[in-house]
Amino acid sequence: MTTITVFGGGSWGTALAHLLASEGRDVLLWCRSAEQARAITLTGRNPKHLKTVDLAPKLLSTANLSDAADFSPNWISAVPAQAFRSLMERLAPFRQEGLRICNVAKGIEIASGFRLSEVAAQVIPDGDYALLSGPSHAEEVAAGQPAAVVVAAVDEATARHWQELVMTPAFRVYTSTDVVGVEIGGAVKNVIAVGAGIARAMGLGDNATAALVTRGLAEIMRLGARLGANPLTLAGLTGAGDLMVTCFSGLSRNYRLGLEIGRGKSLQEASDALGEVAEGAFTVRALVEHALKLDVDIPLSMAVYGALYRGTPPAELLEALLVRSPKPEMPPLFWRE
Amino acid sequence: MTTITVFGGGSWGTALAHLLASEGRDVLLWCRSAEQARAITLTGRNPKHLKTVDLAPKLLSTANLSDAADFSPNWISAVPAQAFRSLMERLAPFRQEGLRICNVAKGIEIASGFRLSEVAAQVIPDGDYALLSGPSHAEEVAAGQPAAVVVAAVDEATARHWQELVMTPAFRVYTSTDVVGVEIGGAVKNVIAVGAGIARAMGLGDNATAALVTRGLAEIMRLGARLGANPLTLAGLTGAGDLMVTCFSGLSRNYRLGLEIGRGKSLQEASDALGEVAEGAFTVRALVEHALKLDVDIPLSMAVYGALYRGTPPAELLEALLVRSPKPEMPPLFWRE
Repeated sequence: MTTITVFGGGSWGTALAHLLASEGRDVLLWCRSAEQARAITLTGRNPKHLKTVDLAPKLLSTANLSDAADFSPNWISAVPAQAFRSLMERLAPFRQEGLRICNVAKGIEIASGFRLSEVAAQVIPDGDYALLSGPSHAEEVAAGQPAAVVVAAVDEATARHWQELVMTPAFRVYTSTDVVGVEIGGAVKNVIAVGAGIARAMGLGDNATAALVTRGLAEIMRLGARLGANPLTLAGLTGAGDLMVTCFSGLSRNYRLGLEIGRGKSLQEASDALGEVAEGAFTVRALVEHALKLDVDIPLSMAVYGALYRGTPPAELLEALLVRSPKPEMPPLFWRE
Repeated sequence: MTTITVFGGGSWGTALAHLLASEGRDVLLWCRSAEQARAITLTGRNPKHLKTVDLAPKLLSTANLSDAADFSPNWISAVPAQAFRSLMERLAPFRQEGLRICNVAKGIEIASGFRLSEVAAQVIPDGDYALLSGPSHAEEVAAGQPAAVVVAAVDEATARHWQELVMTPAFRVYTSTDVVGVEIGGAVKNVIAVGAGIARAMGLGDNATAALVTRGLAEIMRLGARLGANPLTLAGLTGAGDLMVTCFSGLSRNYRLGLEIGRGKSLQEASDALGEVAEGAFTVRALVEHALKLDVDIPLSMAVYGALYRGTPPAELLEALLVRSPKPEMPPLFWRE
């Protein structure tokens, strides 16, 4: 019998738990709030996220962490990136035989600048870690709309384990052993999305947006290559694919943050308007730190950082694109500077 | 003194000629129609394309081919892909010292399946060939909106020559020596755009569209690698970047062709509705032939081909994406099957 515990009753955790329960897997969804867990189990609806979705009858929910941890050795962590370490710390005592952890949050730990795979290795060193990423609006997945994603793990067998567990006819799962590449793509695309929003607010057209996104991708590739990622991973679903959804669908919080910044709002004002701080605003800080340390040239991300934290005018982004972006050179060699 | 002749008074040729003349280059625009050439020189407007743009005063136009050829050793060919061979044949007698040819049309020669660099080499074997490609709606470039593109030539010095000639503050030009990679990206993206249109007409969401575009890009990479291209070129401006503009802006003829096909129209009916046959409908035939010959797996392009020429239902495209697309495997190795 295939069991899975999904930790985190937000949109993405709920959508995944529903998807897998609909396919006959035995899924338990852990929610922080007991009230929310009770509502899901009793009414078949999540009162806070994806409210209109009739959840699969097989899907049960609990707020009891030890029950949730004991339910299955297959743990999917769907809490936000900044809550990942604390969840892992709380779960560590419940380690069990054959434990496998798959994280589906994108982002990095702000306080430390660590990627989430590094956080996992620090807290549960013997845990078999994987992550799932790719273009996947929760709303569409919950509605049974098709999507394709990637599960990455250092150990190929682990990636295949999750592929078998999570793949459904409409939810196609590719495997990868490039954990760093998948991780970086998922985190840094939010920074580029902020940039795309700024560009749009400045009245730039499709050409400039495409150039910005593509040259932004080249920045991630350069940085990724320096960190041991395969640049080609970033051309795949978890890089270019996710970027397309984030930068062109207009639904992304990060894109909308960029729109507000581009209209002249401060980060504080823009975050107030959006009701939250978008992940890209955090990620860009760690990104800039990493790039400075490793001496990697990332002018577009630097311009986004400047617009968010230094009060530089949005037009700096355009200057970065047209002037400071690395001197035109052979694209195949773009990450050797 | 920097002189350039642009052959072809369509949208893209006009936009480029205007851009370069605005920057102080001496540009002569050759139009097939004497009436059109006269109108451009006398009124400063192109009566057929980009009609509302006030062309740079320095921009002159002629319909006399020998005058145009003699005007400069820097020839930019901006005629449609299918007219490229015939233009080269007509221009061959006017070869001159230091001749350089830069083609800006995307596509392949339908009758032969040849890439345009191959056509150029056949007709003017001693010509120094380059091509310019990337995300570049003519309307935006003519309006002075920023864009970034790539000039590719086998000889790096040739690429740099064109970079110097064509780059302006708002029109950033990167160089590449991967002619095959740039060429394939420009041609095959139209096929994927047709697929994206079909997907949208079927009611598929952002996730599926992003998956389709990204997995379509992987098909081009596989084929490109077999033909000697660097797959990373296809992750750059002339591949992923151009794809984003084509598949997400909704302006592309190829995308609109896909929409009509996805709504159940035949290729004939869809082309009648659009007033022309979109380039992707031609390219897909050559693409399928190449792939079969080289034994490269391109299920998405095959599905587009089926929808256009075999009357297979649009839903086949979804099946190709979710089932026939290569078995999930390590992304970094995706073109080794």
